Amino acid sequence: MLYTKSFQKLIDVFRKMPGVGNKSAVRMAYYVLSMTDEEANDMTKIILDAKEKICYCKICQNTTEQEICEICSSSKRDKSIICVVEQPKDVIALEKTGEFSGTYHVLHGCISPMDGIGPEDIKIKELLERAADESVKEIIMAISPNVEGDATSMYISRLLKPFGIKITRIAYGIPVGGDLEYADQVTLAKAIEGRREI
Amino acid sequence: MLYTKSFQKLIDVFRKMPGVGNKSAVRMAYYVLSMTDEEANDMTKIILDAKEKICYCKICQNTTEQEICEICSSSKRDKSIICVVEQPKDVIALEKTGEFSGTYHVLHGCISPMDGIGPEDIKIKELLERAADESVKEIIMAISPNVEGDATSMYISRLLKPFGIKITRIAYGIPVGGDLEYADQVTLAKAIEGRREI
Repeated sequence: MLYTKSFQKLIDVFRKMPGVGNKSAVRMAYYVLSMTDEEANDMTKIILDAKEKICYCKICQNTTEQEICEICSSSKRDKSIICVVEQPKDVIALEKTGEFSGTYHVLHGCISPMDGIGPEDIKIKELLERAADESVKEIIMAISPNVEGDATSMYISRLLKPFGIKITRIAYGIPVGGDLEYADQVTLAKAIEGRREI
Repeated sequence: MLYTKSFQKLIDVFRKMPGVGNKSAVRMAYYVLSMTDEEANDMTKIILDAKEKICYCKICQNTTEQEICEICSSSKRDKSIICVVEQPKDVIALEKTGEFSGTYHVLHGCISPMDGIGPEDIKIKELLERAADESVKEIIMAISPNVEGDATSMYISRLLKPFGIKITRIAYGIPVGGDLEYADQVTLAKAIEGRREI
């Protein structure tokens, strides 16, 4: 054992985080040691505070500190369009474009039998409840185009069929600023398939 | 503001850590949200626990959970040789080699006037106290060969001169397994200067 027990535990805490390797975890642990007691207390307070205060919006399931999130409670947002995403960070990414004025629905995951995640483990039921409202005109599937994502999109769109709502998905194709040469074959095929008149 | 207040604070906590960029900090913050309350409590407990339990060895200033660290209290270590390093992680790196059987002295930094760190801010006084003991025969400077490191090495070796102790520094040269082509000129020059008969 090169590290003391408490220190190894501290390293392990950071090691578990996404994208943190062994060396980074050690650096972060040393950073914690270099903090003053006050800073360390603040840090733990912020962590527990965030856990306590942040909950899920009753409508769209996005993270919020109120019962209903800002987007769902805004009168400027078009409630007739729901954009379905996997994670709260996808909402942030779409909001940054400033192009979408509808509302969102966060699934908090994808159907993935390999990881034991079934339809009942993600927020599909809540989406169906929203779709039952007659004011909803369109549901846009903005889920990552991979095996799990496609399966989830298909599953949801089948469930939504009986509601008679227009169901769309975001366009797949070459990223803007990207180079054709470096695009993979599947993306290129999707780009040709989804071609538009100019 | 794209994120809620508590969430932005949580991101900032991680953002301050060494080597953590904006995207990583956001991912880590989402990871905290995905933890159970119990896991979050454990995490904060481990942080505070490490801060409370880990202190500096009274002799070598390395991080430890006892008054005197394992290396300093081991009867197998040669107390007549002290290897001076900047940080506790340098001790770990040297211990991993399994080649050094002396003791260490951790300075906790380098003299760096640019950052307002003077000789009194690092553990030089403690080193001099140890050097005053007649049993000490050699002091090895194992400090990174950069501007601040060299200045610190020079400063300490001058202070140690009057003690009549042998003062050495670790060898600079081409890393083993490295390619001559990719070594910088200064390293190459040091490697030639430090050549040995074979």
